[in-house]
Amino acid sequence: MKLNIALLAGDGIGPEVIAQAVKVCDAIATKFNHEISWNPALTGAAAIDAVGEPYPDETHEICMKADAVLFGAIGHPKYDNDPSAKVRPEQGLLKMRKKLGLFANVRPTFTFPSLIENSPLKRERIEGTDLVFLRELTGGIYFGEKGRLDDGETAYDNCVYTRAEVQRLAKKGFELAMTRSRKLCCVDKANVLETSRLWRETVQAMAKDYPEVEVSYEFVDAVAMRLVQWPNSYDVLITENLFGDILTDEASVISGSMGLMPSASVGEHTSLYEPIHGSYPQATGLDIANPLATVLSAAMMFEDAFGLTEEAKAIRAIVDRSLSEGVVTEDLAGGKKAYKTSEVGDWLAKNL
Amino acid sequence: MKLNIALLAGDGIGPEVIAQAVKVCDAIATKFNHEISWNPALTGAAAIDAVGEPYPDETHEICMKADAVLFGAIGHPKYDNDPSAKVRPEQGLLKMRKKLGLFANVRPTFTFPSLIENSPLKRERIEGTDLVFLRELTGGIYFGEKGRLDDGETAYDNCVYTRAEVQRLAKKGFELAMTRSRKLCCVDKANVLETSRLWRETVQAMAKDYPEVEVSYEFVDAVAMRLVQWPNSYDVLITENLFGDILTDEASVISGSMGLMPSASVGEHTSLYEPIHGSYPQATGLDIANPLATVLSAAMMFEDAFGLTEEAKAIRAIVDRSLSEGVVTEDLAGGKKAYKTSEVGDWLAKNL
Ligand SMILES: CC(C)[C@H](C(=O)O)[C@@H](O)C(=O)O
Ligand SMILES: CC(C)[C@H](C(=O)O)[C@@H](O)C(=O)O
Repeated sequence: MKLNIALLAGDGIGPEVIAQAVKVCDAIATKFNHEISWNPALTGAAAIDAVGEPYPDETHEICMKADAVLFGAIGHPKYDNDPSAKVRPEQGLLKMRKKLGLFANVRPTFTFPSLIENSPLKRERIEGTDLVFLRELTGGIYFGEKGRLDDGETAYDNCVYTRAEVQRLAKKGFELAMTRSRKLCCVDKANVLETSRLWRETVQAMAKDYPEVEVSYEFVDAVAMRLVQWPNSYDVLITENLFGDILTDEASVISGSMGLMPSASVGEHTSLYEPIHGSYPQATGLDIANPLATVLSAAMMFEDAFGLTEEAKAIRAIVDRSLSEGVVTEDLAGGKKAYKTSEVGDWLAKNL
Repeated sequence: MKLNIALLAGDGIGPEVIAQAVKVCDAIATKFNHEISWNPALTGAAAIDAVGEPYPDETHEICMKADAVLFGAIGHPKYDNDPSAKVRPEQGLLKMRKKLGLFANVRPTFTFPSLIENSPLKRERIEGTDLVFLRELTGGIYFGEKGRLDDGETAYDNCVYTRAEVQRLAKKGFELAMTRSRKLCCVDKANVLETSRLWRETVQAMAKDYPEVEVSYEFVDAVAMRLVQWPNSYDVLITENLFGDILTDEASVISGSMGLMPSASVGEHTSLYEPIHGSYPQATGLDIANPLATVLSAAMMFEDAFGLTEEAKAIRAIVDRSLSEGVVTEDLAGGKKAYKTSEVGDWLAKNL
């Protein structure tokens, strides 16, 4: 198969972890007889530095032409504490999501038996955790009108949702639930927000078409609690953009495997695969960042974007082996020998 | 001292837990020679049922005349899954906060040594946790314009903050930090939201007046993670209304003592004390709910609203004794004998 992949390394540790995923994908291509054409493009602070714009048109064209996008991370601390910065790396991310129509962010959270002790939570709380968040990604308060009034003394952000936006996200949620244990939780704040009431009534209406799916409705504050108490009581969760941002990050730490969590963003034009961790500026260039989340994102890409299940399985199997044989970066080494980012990538590619 | 306290029991288990706090306060009054006049008033679903309105004017007058308000919990499941309900108990809560000018919700999270094993988190992660959230309570998306457009197909909620609103909340945060370990964390989403940028720039400007306070700025998604990873790395956190709703609930479960966490809401006209737990409808009338959070909220009231530190200490000491002697409700009994809600209240009052 010919695979045309846009490669957006981004900022911070992005280029380092992406490089390892490329090694692994190339090894897979050799093994399974595929031909990958990598199309690198600029995003984030790296793109601002180069061309003054965090998601340049050229990058967009490369993504639109690709069969899938593999993404590292973006964000740079020099922008974070400057509320007045006019151009920000994150704007590139949001523009990219919007222009590529990536309306659903798929974020699995699961445990690796060998890493369970890394979790801040007790073993009995997390064993068996296997949940998926579907976060709406191109609507809500992220994209509503925002600005200042009264000479800058008043700020506002408008949160907007249409029924159609809720439906297309919820549809993916119901469909996903049907392939899993048929449990769907709609997370909202319907006791306060009108947008949440629209979410809830829309999901309630759709539930009639999926009689086999058991649907629950929970407030976002209650979910923020229960995720820490009993993460394994959840299966598929659907939610709006901002709640999803907060809850998926919270969920990512409970498994103890944050450095391994992949994600996919899917929608209208293409799909994008990225590790859930950020650009980790402090580690930039040190060759110490854990590349496994990016490698597992590539596995998701093979499976979901290309339908290449065996290839995905092979990647997951070699990642499992690296964990059980202790070929891991310092975050997972637990006092034992720590491998460099590039060494982990080399080992994975060689042993595939 | 003459203490004039408005008593808002509310819904669900509210009346049961409030009754125990009243017993304890009355015992304190006898012991320390105070005279308490209790002024009960209706709120929540109970008020809707009685007078068709969740925060009646009469209740407001009683609160405004009181020296402090002691509050149980509100909310009733019959409203939760009916997005079209015109009157909702929560509207009463929001109206009350707004009309009483309760702009700062003070939410301590700390561990009780004897309860540390109840936490879903490992002991070494939570030992020493002692943090306080100051949540803005009368602004933001809770109170912005909300509604529907396009025949109900589009919903919106506007989030608005003024610099003055941020300043008065942040001022309390800096002042509180000065009485503690001088660490303040401003939680926002300044990489996406204009209101968050206003928060951050306002706090940055105020920081100059508190050179001894070490201020950090973190994104809400990062805090949602770190709260579970290293809760004891935080001290005072300030944040806007919706982020505070989510994060304070998340924080409440990490200590393993959720059934014991008190809170205060302070501001312009009076102050209000309430347990952080909800109305727990399933337990209503069963005499099994844990009254300790409400009792400890009364301790906060004695200390903060009346300046009666000894009285507060006495309440906290007797609560500690009930924990170490195992005079606790079933949620804390851990297989041993469980006491009824009313029995715990009787024991506390008798042994004070
Ligand atoms: C960087 C930021 C704009 C982004 C978001 O809030 O969506 C990030 O936190 C994420 O979750 O991908
Ligand atoms: C009941 C609800 C409106 C309320 C809120 O969101 O503020 C509650 O969750 C709280 O935190 O007091």
